[in-house]
Amino acid sequence: MKKRNAFYAQSGGVTAVINASAAGVIETARRHKDKIGKVLAGRNGIIGALTEDLIDTSRESASMVAALKHTPSGAFGSCRYKLKSLEESRAQYERLIEVFRAHDIGYFFYNGGNDSADTCLKVSQIADKLGYPLQAIHVPKTVDNDLVLTDNCPGFGSVAKYVATSMREAAFDVASMAKTSTKVFVMEVMGRHAGWITAAVGLADDKETPIPLVLLFPEIAFDEVKFLAAVRGKVDTFGYCCIGVSEGLRDAAGNLMAEAGTRDAFGHAQLGGIGPYIAQRIHEKLGYKYHWAVADYLQRAARHIASKTDLEQSYAVGKAAVQFALAGHNAIMPAIIRTSDTPYRWRIEAAPLKKIANKEKMLPRSYIARDGFGITDKARVYLSPLIRGEAPPPFKNGVPQYVRLKNAAVPRKLNTYQV
Amino acid sequence: MKKRNAFYAQSGGVTAVINASAAGVIETARRHKDKIGKVLAGRNGIIGALTEDLIDTSRESASMVAALKHTPSGAFGSCRYKLKSLEESRAQYERLIEVFRAHDIGYFFYNGGNDSADTCLKVSQIADKLGYPLQAIHVPKTVDNDLVLTDNCPGFGSVAKYVATSMREAAFDVASMAKTSTKVFVMEVMGRHAGWITAAVGLADDKETPIPLVLLFPEIAFDEVKFLAAVRGKVDTFGYCCIGVSEGLRDAAGNLMAEAGTRDAFGHAQLGGIGPYIAQRIHEKLGYKYHWAVADYLQRAARHIASKTDLEQSYAVGKAAVQFALAGHNAIMPAIIRTSDTPYRWRIEAAPLKKIANKEKMLPRSYIARDGFGITDKARVYLSPLIRGEAPPPFKNGVPQYVRLKNAAVPRKLNTYQV
Repeated sequence: MKKRNAFYAQSGGVTAVINASAAGVIETARRHKDKIGKVLAGRNGIIGALTEDLIDTSRESASMVAALKHTPSGAFGSCRYKLKSLEESRAQYERLIEVFRAHDIGYFFYNGGNDSADTCLKVSQIADKLGYPLQAIHVPKTVDNDLVLTDNCPGFGSVAKYVATSMREAAFDVASMAKTSTKVFVMEVMGRHAGWITAAVGLADDKETPIPLVLLFPEIAFDEVKFLAAVRGKVDTFGYCCIGVSEGLRDAAGNLMAEAGTRDAFGHAQLGGIGPYIAQRIHEKLGYKYHWAVADYLQRAARHIASKTDLEQSYAVGKAAVQFALAGHNAIMPAIIRTSDTPYRWRIEAAPLKKIANKEKMLPRSYIARDGFGITDKARVYLSPLIRGEAPPPFKNGVPQYVRLKNAAVPRKLNTYQV
Repeated sequence: MKKRNAFYAQSGGVTAVINASAAGVIETARRHKDKIGKVLAGRNGIIGALTEDLIDTSRESASMVAALKHTPSGAFGSCRYKLKSLEESRAQYERLIEVFRAHDIGYFFYNGGNDSADTCLKVSQIADKLGYPLQAIHVPKTVDNDLVLTDNCPGFGSVAKYVATSMREAAFDVASMAKTSTKVFVMEVMGRHAGWITAAVGLADDKETPIPLVLLFPEIAFDEVKFLAAVRGKVDTFGYCCIGVSEGLRDAAGNLMAEAGTRDAFGHAQLGGIGPYIAQRIHEKLGYKYHWAVADYLQRAARHIASKTDLEQSYAVGKAAVQFALAGHNAIMPAIIRTSDTPYRWRIEAAPLKKIANKEKMLPRSYIARDGFGITDKARVYLSPLIRGEAPPPFKNGVPQYVRLKNAAVPRKLNTYQV
């Protein structure tokens, strides 16, 4: 087996632990120097491959690569750039192969969600058509947790831990204030299509410390009358109410509330998100004093409260990607297979990209309480192991000691290329 | 010295570590059972004293009291309820003394900020006038860090650590995305009058990992032209920009932007806060793609990322309050005195409430960079020790194991009283 270089790139929204996957790829490749030369990373994702803007990861010390495991964000830069179909964007796919050929890339590791699984599959297909030997492996990553064939997605567990912890903390706060002040707290969370992150807010409470939660899932059309009744019921019973709302909440007609709903109501674009809107409606209709939070990037960047399970799985999929490539696999994704709920056990298996690309795994209705405002025990059994374990980063002067790599450029060999 | 009971209450907005002060009071009182009988807590702060709704903390086990050190929020409930002047509210002050007399309260420990320092002083004065022997000690607490005579305020260090860590994490995220997506991230933070929390956002970066930050302090009138130029400058140089904005940002006329400014612009009440407004203005004027976050209660409830320094000081002021009371002090507050910056050293001293009540410590101009958009080295020297050290709570099933006390009521002895 001839020694060839590997290409690695990060795609789409980054996470608290995507760099652990990068570390998994790079450290595993370094242990197979007989088969893999250098790992070259795309600067700003696939754009780096198209423009031949490659980073030489061999210039990074072992300790800096190890530090990626505790550094959130995309260490090489990511991008929101989707290659279209092979028919529409054939020139781009061919350019990719041209760059790979120039740098003797034999392994393509693409770290992303649904879109990048599709891109990875297409890269594999074009290489095959052009007779260029390439093994394309997709490394799963998405806070949305919506990839199929894998039990869960690296990046999700840490966001889930963040939102559960944050809501738990805020709920304790609101409970203290409810007598004379804030009675309702609204937290808006990510997840535009699937309600996985919203469901994770439901892990804020437990049997010893129940919390009056009302969750608004993107899967359940918003019914204001029913919702307000639920909130009033919680306040009447507990004195306060905590609401987790998905940024992707939709009205009965299927329109995104954050866009259409609030625009209709006032005839102008909504500056705030759906979180402040929901809080305002509660105040108008029920008169409760409210507070609201929109964590936005804080939730997906929060490496300081990352899930240890998530961290381990993120590293494992990176490591397995290299091992699968060396074992001759192509057009696959290392998937996480759950083998036991209690105790929680999992292993990695190769799953074919053909069955993954362009598919979305939605939150099952059986995970949502009958009234549509909470999670079921079934959801808890699924979600709970994913947020377990702590893996705090080292701190220096009170803040996490995250690192920036040198990210030294590989000399260009081809003509410039515009994307 | 006759053995008498103590009263303890939490006032105003709660923090991640105010319960550590409660633990300091209760544990120290328990070590002096010859002098202090029970510690009775006010349910929902001073309202509990007025309505004779008292909690018997002697019913809580030692381990539950110890667990307060890692539980955010106000364990006995807090309230936003300010007693007016002695002239206006004399009947209320007299009612307090009546309740204290009924339960043989000899020690009044009031845990709060500016308003409660004032209340504590007045309670001391009315007790004196009525010839009721009482030692009133104010236990400092405020995330706003604006009490005078103390170097810093318990509760602030943990919020400061939260906002510095959160902005650092978000900045790493934005840096990854800036090439093709988000270039500007705005985080709104608490602190309506003084910019201490805004200044703490400036601790997000350090020499090894500089971050292009622009801070908007409540002390500096918002100048949109200058601000937009600063943001553009950062994006031109670094590719992205992170903005920390105080909820208390004011325009040149001194009006709160979150209220007046945004209402003027659109002629309607602003649902979102100043954070989304600032983000929107950047988008309109400079065209950058943006994200924004409003952490709200998450920042002050975030016990999971509390500062160890803050935790230790919060406990220390509770402990010192009891010790000062036993030493015969009255109408004082345990203040934190910094004796050295490097290494950071501090001790507790009794400070007279007369010099504290109704005073606010603003962020000095020398802590704000000349251009008004950053912090100085002097600010770093002051702020940095306050966020140092980690003190994570125990976790169970992936979330912090915060506790709820029994909060058993003390039988009432007096007639009911309406507040």
